[in-house]
Amino acid sequence: MIFASDNWAGAHPAISENLAAHAHGYVSAYGTSDLDRKVEKRLSEIFEKDIAVFFVATGTAANSLALASANRPGGVVFCHRAAHVNVDECGAPEFFSHGARLSPVDGELGKMDATRLEAEIRRFPPEFVHGGQPMAVTLTQATESGTVYSLAEIEAIASIAKSHRLPLHMDGARFANALVSLDVTPAEMTWKRGVDVLSFGGTKNGCWCAEALILFDLSQAHDMHFLRKRAAQLFSKSRFIAAQFEAYLAGDLWLDLARHANAMARRLAEGISASAESRLAWTPDANEVFVILKRSVAARLKQQGAVFHDWPVPHDLAGSLAEDEGLYRLVTSFATQAEDVDQFLDAC
Amino acid sequence: MIFASDNWAGAHPAISENLAAHAHGYVSAYGTSDLDRKVEKRLSEIFEKDIAVFFVATGTAANSLALASANRPGGVVFCHRAAHVNVDECGAPEFFSHGARLSPVDGELGKMDATRLEAEIRRFPPEFVHGGQPMAVTLTQATESGTVYSLAEIEAIASIAKSHRLPLHMDGARFANALVSLDVTPAEMTWKRGVDVLSFGGTKNGCWCAEALILFDLSQAHDMHFLRKRAAQLFSKSRFIAAQFEAYLAGDLWLDLARHANAMARRLAEGISASAESRLAWTPDANEVFVILKRSVAARLKQQGAVFHDWPVPHDLAGSLAEDEGLYRLVTSFATQAEDVDQFLDAC
Amino acid sequence: MIFASDNWAGAHPAISENLAAHAHGYVSAYGTSDLDRKVEKRLSEIFEKDIAVFFVATGTAANSLALASANRPGGVVFCHRAAHVNVDECGAPEFFSHGARLSPVDGELGKMDATRLEAEIRRFPPEFVHGGQPMAVTLTQATESGTVYSLAEIEAIASIAKSHRLPLHMDGARFANALVSLDVTPAEMTWKRGVDVLSFGGTKNGCWCAEALILFDLSQAHDMHFLRKRAAQLFSKSRFIAAQFEAYLAGDLWLDLARHANAMARRLAEGISASAESRLAWTPDANEVFVILKRSVAARLKQQGAVFHDWPVPHDLAGSLAEDEGLYRLVTSFATQAEDVDQFLDAC
Amino acid sequence: MIFASDNWAGAHPAISENLAAHAHGYVSAYGTSDLDRKVEKRLSEIFEKDIAVFFVATGTAANSLALASANRPGGVVFCHRAAHVNVDECGAPEFFSHGARLSPVDGELGKMDATRLEAEIRRFPPEFVHGGQPMAVTLTQATESGTVYSLAEIEAIASIAKSHRLPLHMDGARFANALVSLDVTPAEMTWKRGVDVLSFGGTKNGCWCAEALILFDLSQAHDMHFLRKRAAQLFSKSRFIAAQFEAYLAGDLWLDLARHANAMARRLAEGISASAESRLAWTPDANEVFVILKRSVAARLKQQGAVFHDWPVPHDLAGSLAEDEGLYRLVTSFATQAEDVDQFLDAC
Repeated sequence: MIFASDNWAGAHPAISENLAAHAHGYVSAYGTSDLDRKVEKRLSEIFEKDIAVFFVATGTAANSLALASANRPGGVVFCHRAAHVNVDECGAPEFFSHGARLSPVDGELGKMDATRLEAEIRRFPPEFVHGGQPMAVTLTQATESGTVYSLAEIEAIASIAKSHRLPLHMDGARFANALVSLDVTPAEMTWKRGVDVLSFGGTKNGCWCAEALILFDLSQAHDMHFLRKRAAQLFSKSRFIAAQFEAYLAGDLWLDLARHANAMARRLAEGISASAESRLAWTPDANEVFVILKRSVAARLKQQGAVFHDWPVPHDLAGSLAEDEGLYRLVTSFATQAEDVDQFLDAC
Repeated sequence: MIFASDNWAGAHPAISENLAAHAHGYVSAYGTSDLDRKVEKRLSEIFEKDIAVFFVATGTAANSLALASANRPGGVVFCHRAAHVNVDECGAPEFFSHGARLSPVDGELGKMDATRLEAEIRRFPPEFVHGGQPMAVTLTQATESGTVYSLAEIEAIASIAKSHRLPLHMDGARFANALVSLDVTPAEMTWKRGVDVLSFGGTKNGCWCAEALILFDLSQAHDMHFLRKRAAQLFSKSRFIAAQFEAYLAGDLWLDLARHANAMARRLAEGISASAESRLAWTPDANEVFVILKRSVAARLKQQGAVFHDWPVPHDLAGSLAEDEGLYRLVTSFATQAEDVDQFLDAC
Repeated sequence: MIFASDNWAGAHPAISENLAAHAHGYVSAYGTSDLDRKVEKRLSEIFEKDIAVFFVATGTAANSLALASANRPGGVVFCHRAAHVNVDECGAPEFFSHGARLSPVDGELGKMDATRLEAEIRRFPPEFVHGGQPMAVTLTQATESGTVYSLAEIEAIASIAKSHRLPLHMDGARFANALVSLDVTPAEMTWKRGVDVLSFGGTKNGCWCAEALILFDLSQAHDMHFLRKRAAQLFSKSRFIAAQFEAYLAGDLWLDLARHANAMARRLAEGISASAESRLAWTPDANEVFVILKRSVAARLKQQGAVFHDWPVPHDLAGSLAEDEGLYRLVTSFATQAEDVDQFLDAC
Repeated sequence: MIFASDNWAGAHPAISENLAAHAHGYVSAYGTSDLDRKVEKRLSEIFEKDIAVFFVATGTAANSLALASANRPGGVVFCHRAAHVNVDECGAPEFFSHGARLSPVDGELGKMDATRLEAEIRRFPPEFVHGGQPMAVTLTQATESGTVYSLAEIEAIASIAKSHRLPLHMDGARFANALVSLDVTPAEMTWKRGVDVLSFGGTKNGCWCAEALILFDLSQAHDMHFLRKRAAQLFSKSRFIAAQFEAYLAGDLWLDLARHANAMARRLAEGISASAESRLAWTPDANEVFVILKRSVAARLKQQGAVFHDWPVPHDLAGSLAEDEGLYRLVTSFATQAEDVDQFLDAC
């Protein structure tokens, strides 16, 4: 009954095996091997576009480098208040971009509200030097609330970013989960909607450590090589990332894993909905389920071995919880078993 | 005949297998698992001291964070002119330490000359604000020239650092190769000689990606957790590093691999010495061999499939090369086969 | 009828004359002259304490260096939402402190609410590496709303800062205005209440360009010399700052100028209160008066030559403005004439 | 007999008086006043080009912002080894440009050797990510050795910079002294030779504090507004800089002051040349004279009240000094009196 986070799982066997298969022999280092090239080519096919791919160590690195590549002095980045860059990265985005500021935008269910985004950007008129200048917009897909922006919602955000000539970044730590949730192509969910740069995460969906920064605008690629190296994010034996991605992408394994994780989340959500004592905080779109439980029930579940996190109650939900209730996050992954879900539901 | 670099090799089977063995099941993320703890404990035993261990993605990250933890405004770091931090890290040490400066110190065979180090530090009197202030000393063990500081040489450097109240960092990207070359204990080569912080590298010696920053002074550990996270170097599934180190350290595999690499370098060096047409630039102490070849011979060898790098000729060697000769670096690793060495020597 | 800002005024004649008086002759540069020493000594007397004084070019520099001296990786600074550091310094505090984050705290009338401050600090538990770590608290005296923290209010903030071992900075761009408003001594308003570092502003109160960073904790002084120089804030001919401060402090000129500015603000406030068509948004404590006017009246006043700024309406005031009303800020200074105030009130 | 530095002098009376003349009345702040505009227009006329002018607090600020505006990740700046940016700015250039590196280029008499510059730039091939990438070239006019680049020499440096697509910065802390030495126009010595950005110094030549960053390429101006503000270098009462420059430039005062300082240096040099006991280290072109004196003579002079600095002996001069001789720097300024020079020569 481990629902703490999708990064508590290990690696999928196919990925682990491919790593072992590539352990022998010599290949050139620092991202220049044939295997690196092959994976980049595969990603270009998947995204139906010539793209630039940069393997990095963590999702935080991908996000921070994406913002660093958009850097402007006195720069301001617009993101949802609950975005990972804003609450979980210990100032890495600010550090990588030399002190740029994150300006939180509110919006329900973890999604930036387009109208509020527009208003927030307008707080920084381009010629008013004291307040700083807009620099980038970043959205998270799937969101930190386990919801997924629709294509139209992405397009609305992109349209605002474009009208202010701001690049649009997508934090895709759970990219695959969002993709299969919408049932669209990677191109449709990204550059065809106006996304300029993507953090493409594999770690949470069955890899050990496989994150890639993807640039849809190749003119940024030259400097990104230096940004990544300067950030100490260029692996010498980079084939160990490439080998993970090779297996991850082969035969659409990545989509299958995400479908499984989402299905487990749905199973969990349906069980919760049917339960007398607990209820969903909102309907999950991907692999994170937010539930409202009596605190005593949550405590009992934890005692029985369930692992999951307490979650801060968003303002718009505050009224709907009773005194003795709390909000809790349950995350499923490629490794979640239906039995685990059912055991949790039984105990719930 | 691949002697390009020790990071062209893949991973040792024992390490690869242990990764696979740990691929299943759930463990807590971000460096908090039992396996992380176990590896840290093992390293404390190996170093005969309570230490703080921080896994990071690259040697550059370990070096840069080590210097960042010593950061002072207007800070100056003293290193050998050919040190990796000075020539191969694209400004990462400066970036991580907010613009600190590297002040190169000369010295033969890749080792800082203690007298010159003292003179260089004295160029920055502590109260002369215009020049900046000394901040740290860093040495590389084994050096970029394939030589190894003796314990007395380390102690001499450390003594100067201490007299100026500067922390001493050791870049141990090839720590194991140096250790078995000196045939001493890890403690003897580090904190017992005055080293305060160590970049402990596993990647070049048979791991996929296993680098650790080791603090001998625990008072620095609190801030290092934040420095590492802010640098986007905290892995979520950090057990994939821990599993590598577990196998690496088990049964002294790491020392065996380093002994093998060094032995291959000696075999290469002895063959070169015995050759009529080529000669050693200097005697190797670890797993890097620097040879002087006729350029035509080097070209022929490359045509025959040998892979190795041209190397810039240091000033003190300039006189001893003929017009038609060049300096070349050959690196051996855990994966180097005696047959490969012999094939190269035959072709040489 | 210029009420745009106190920095629209020039320099007081006594200050201008003293600059001229010191224009001749040679003195040592970079803050080492006898005049520099004399001013520092005078400030130590005024603050009844051995202090370290650093002249800098702007209030933004003083604030940013103060925060830089408290720097921690992943650091979070707590300030009022409307604080100058948060809204008017174009990311300088973040730049100087390598990406530290400002965490806004709400509170009425421009003052941080102590309870909210405590709650906001608690959002960053010291060992939770993802969110960053608390690093400093900064308050503005007088505030951006023209109000003044009482000694008890400063003490309450300081007590919270101390309980979390955070240094407390005071942005004293309008220090003198606050001081004469409270009618207390500089020591009572600063270190005796727990303030550790002060931006002591002279520019807005009759100097050309005279800002000093004052450290009450001398252990921070060594590094501040390097922080200031590295920030390009060490003047060569620093006597041109010292000469301004010499005249500013002589015979309590600074207090007289502040008393005058505050008196002009009171005159303005009383006139507004007595007016039929306009009203005070709140009672001013120092030299900034916030008034609610019909937008048509404001437009007319501007047409008649009055200069003053529109001001964003704070949330807690939103309900008390009519559709056709706006909030406006009027700032008085040492140079404001009673006739100017009366002319404005007549036109109002 | 004060020859310590030109920044030991105060302000010229005409400049001091103009400051006083502008002390009254209200003008808009932060560089937006009519006087600011007037000075910018005057500078555009003087440089025969539409330029962007940014007042800053110090020469270090001008230099550092110039380099910051050329910033590239892993960037390398090429300068003379003895350049102010390299030895006297406490890491400010590195701090402002987020860790860019200064790569020293040797050359006689304080001037970068064009051939060595070319060789040094070639050490950083554009696609070799490990070493960093070239980012800018900066030269100092007049140099730190009191010499002046000829127009042809500037052009040679500019031509190399352009061939590598690098912007060329000129540190003109002693711009006027160089200009009158060459007897050319400001345009001829800068943008007509390929200079892209200029630190235009007034402080050393009779102002209190008047430094301007001048951009010849207006496309950089937008971001420079934010770079300057973020660096805490935007003065509120910026008319106090503008007023200094107004007087400085009026009636070619600036050129007269520089001519005087240079004439005093020539007088000093001629006297030294004629002396039996002392000699010139090299011929001065501007207002700094480097002399070789017996150490006993230097000590005696200092005892008699002369103030001047010992200077490190450059490598190429090392052989020409006797055991008991030292190198000394004597700086003249607008304020130097002929009597002072003669008194020194008599005592010499």
